[in-house]
Amino acid sequence: MGGNLMENRIHNFSAGPAILPVPVLKQAQKDLVALPSLGMSVMEISHRCKAADEIFETTERNLRELLQLPENYKVLFLQGGASLQFSMVPMNVLRGEGRSADYILTGSWGEKAIKEAKKEGTTRVVWTGKESNFVRVPTNEELELSADSTYVHFTSNETIQGVQFASEPESGGAPLVCDASSDILSRPLDVSRYGLIYAGAQKNIGPAGLTLVIIREDLVAKSAENLPTMLSYRVHVENKSLYNTPPVFAIYIMMLVTRWLLEEIGGLEKMGEINRRKAGLLYEVIDASGGFYRGHADPASRSLMNVTWRLPDENLEKQFVSEATKLGLDGLKGHRSVGGIRASIYNAMPLAGVQALAEFMKDFQRKLG
Amino acid sequence: MGGNLMENRIHNFSAGPAILPVPVLKQAQKDLVALPSLGMSVMEISHRCKAADEIFETTERNLRELLQLPENYKVLFLQGGASLQFSMVPMNVLRGEGRSADYILTGSWGEKAIKEAKKEGTTRVVWTGKESNFVRVPTNEELELSADSTYVHFTSNETIQGVQFASEPESGGAPLVCDASSDILSRPLDVSRYGLIYAGAQKNIGPAGLTLVIIREDLVAKSAENLPTMLSYRVHVENKSLYNTPPVFAIYIMMLVTRWLLEEIGGLEKMGEINRRKAGLLYEVIDASGGFYRGHADPASRSLMNVTWRLPDENLEKQFVSEATKLGLDGLKGHRSVGGIRASIYNAMPLAGVQALAEFMKDFQRKLG
Repeated sequence: MGGNLMENRIHNFSAGPAILPVPVLKQAQKDLVALPSLGMSVMEISHRCKAADEIFETTERNLRELLQLPENYKVLFLQGGASLQFSMVPMNVLRGEGRSADYILTGSWGEKAIKEAKKEGTTRVVWTGKESNFVRVPTNEELELSADSTYVHFTSNETIQGVQFASEPESGGAPLVCDASSDILSRPLDVSRYGLIYAGAQKNIGPAGLTLVIIREDLVAKSAENLPTMLSYRVHVENKSLYNTPPVFAIYIMMLVTRWLLEEIGGLEKMGEINRRKAGLLYEVIDASGGFYRGHADPASRSLMNVTWRLPDENLEKQFVSEATKLGLDGLKGHRSVGGIRASIYNAMPLAGVQALAEFMKDFQRKLG
Repeated sequence: MGGNLMENRIHNFSAGPAILPVPVLKQAQKDLVALPSLGMSVMEISHRCKAADEIFETTERNLRELLQLPENYKVLFLQGGASLQFSMVPMNVLRGEGRSADYILTGSWGEKAIKEAKKEGTTRVVWTGKESNFVRVPTNEELELSADSTYVHFTSNETIQGVQFASEPESGGAPLVCDASSDILSRPLDVSRYGLIYAGAQKNIGPAGLTLVIIREDLVAKSAENLPTMLSYRVHVENKSLYNTPPVFAIYIMMLVTRWLLEEIGGLEKMGEINRRKAGLLYEVIDASGGFYRGHADPASRSLMNVTWRLPDENLEKQFVSEATKLGLDGLKGHRSVGGIRASIYNAMPLAGVQALAEFMKDFQRKLG
């Protein structure tokens, strides 16, 4: 039981901040007091020095290679998480446009995005899964898109419900805007289909405190005039994310994570295969449990990042979490708004961790099912 | 030459991100891959788990002890740096008040604060040092305060010009709001004289990516309605900085830094003495140089954090920086907007580093003066 535990590390199934690759942590540890070439810690270097430039450039280059980013997309390293992007997107792209924005609502994060967008302009919910308890994503045919929306927003993966788009929805020609916080870099992505992608780093990119924004050039020009400077995409693009001091250390970790994806995993195609295999192990146990484990999401909308399920009653769920924790399987309690169990199995979760969880699930059912 | 260099570390005089205490870096390094009690890295823990709670609570407790914070002040751990506070302060406290805010302008950061405030409401500059090239702070008698301002804003230390208030200005009864990014925790502070204090972490608190806000309860209530949720002080106070994922690792480093201040330095009184001594060493060399080194700031407004000076010509300045760098004295080039030399000697800069710089200054003058 417990799989390949390294150096007293346990298996961390937290939804975010979440597990990071061990080689990344080891490299960061080695150089934490002083980068050999530099004589100081990455936490101490000026964001305008040559060493910082190299970190930012390498990170962006790695990201561009992983995502095959077209040249007309800009990469921004910001702060404030997806939660601040919920406001920045409509402040920059919706305000003053005299048109509305379309939002597809598939879970809790989408609800927050819509709440902020409404403060900035007319917002239409073009499909909602709320009445059916957020168990699935819509088909393209179900979307009631506006004829002339400023953009169409969706959440590619809802961490709380464990509901994910298998591929991006149609937007009827409007720019597609995506909160990809919890599945970016987990599989290949055709960025050319998007106008803007944003993501908090703390799932698949790095530590909390860094926000990645990928924005198509034509959307940059839309930034409303007279915005607070720190909330203007145009300002951040013009200053290459250096209008103010960016979170240098978090970007450095992102550099190590993207290098790990390129060099140790072999790119997003490979990462996607591994992630499908990992999620498959858990969904197989759920589907073979004869109803002892009940998956929250409809099979076609199941998340490969956050696997969510219930047990026959809440006492069993508590016992499940408690026994798992004792075996070094941590962070499995579902979000307070949904209950049950949630296993977050982001890129850095090794197959061994998922195997250990799958075995535990079978053991637990044999004992108490 | 070079002082107590440890583990190939050089003396880092950068203005920020800046030097951190070596014991802090060593502790963070030791536990980077896995906190012994936890089995995971601080970068990986959920912000809602018990371990994170303890980090946030310990950090706040340390800060409250260091600053002797009165109970009616709230502590917030935010993101976006002082640059985002330039907007958040007026959005929350000025917007919709029907009154104006008074700004005291003593350098480059104050200018940025005023630019953002003007977007949110009526802003009056009640004293400016701009025409005299920002060489000093005003006396209280020089301030042309409004009869009924919402608040009076000042920048306690201007990093670029090296100009610092020896004590806070009078505000005529209005709440005093301070950008204390570059001198917070460098000396004792009578917080009861302030309504709101904000500071980017990357000088005396921790790494870039964390913003500290200390706000008096009555100002929290003023937060304008319908602000973007992430920009509302009220929301952050109500959620104890956990409305969204805070930068956990940066707060952890702040915990280690504040512990270092309490346990190794012995508090802010002691820290202030050390900082006066350090700055004194450099200003003595400047004053004894017969005009070879010309301090930028008037003696009464000299900063204890950023010592700025010129040499007889720009070629000598270049040579000074280049020779210093070779000796392991790094980051001495003045800000591009002012030129000359700037030595940032924040809390973590050891006396040995300043002594090494003072010796180098004397040597350099003997050779080329």
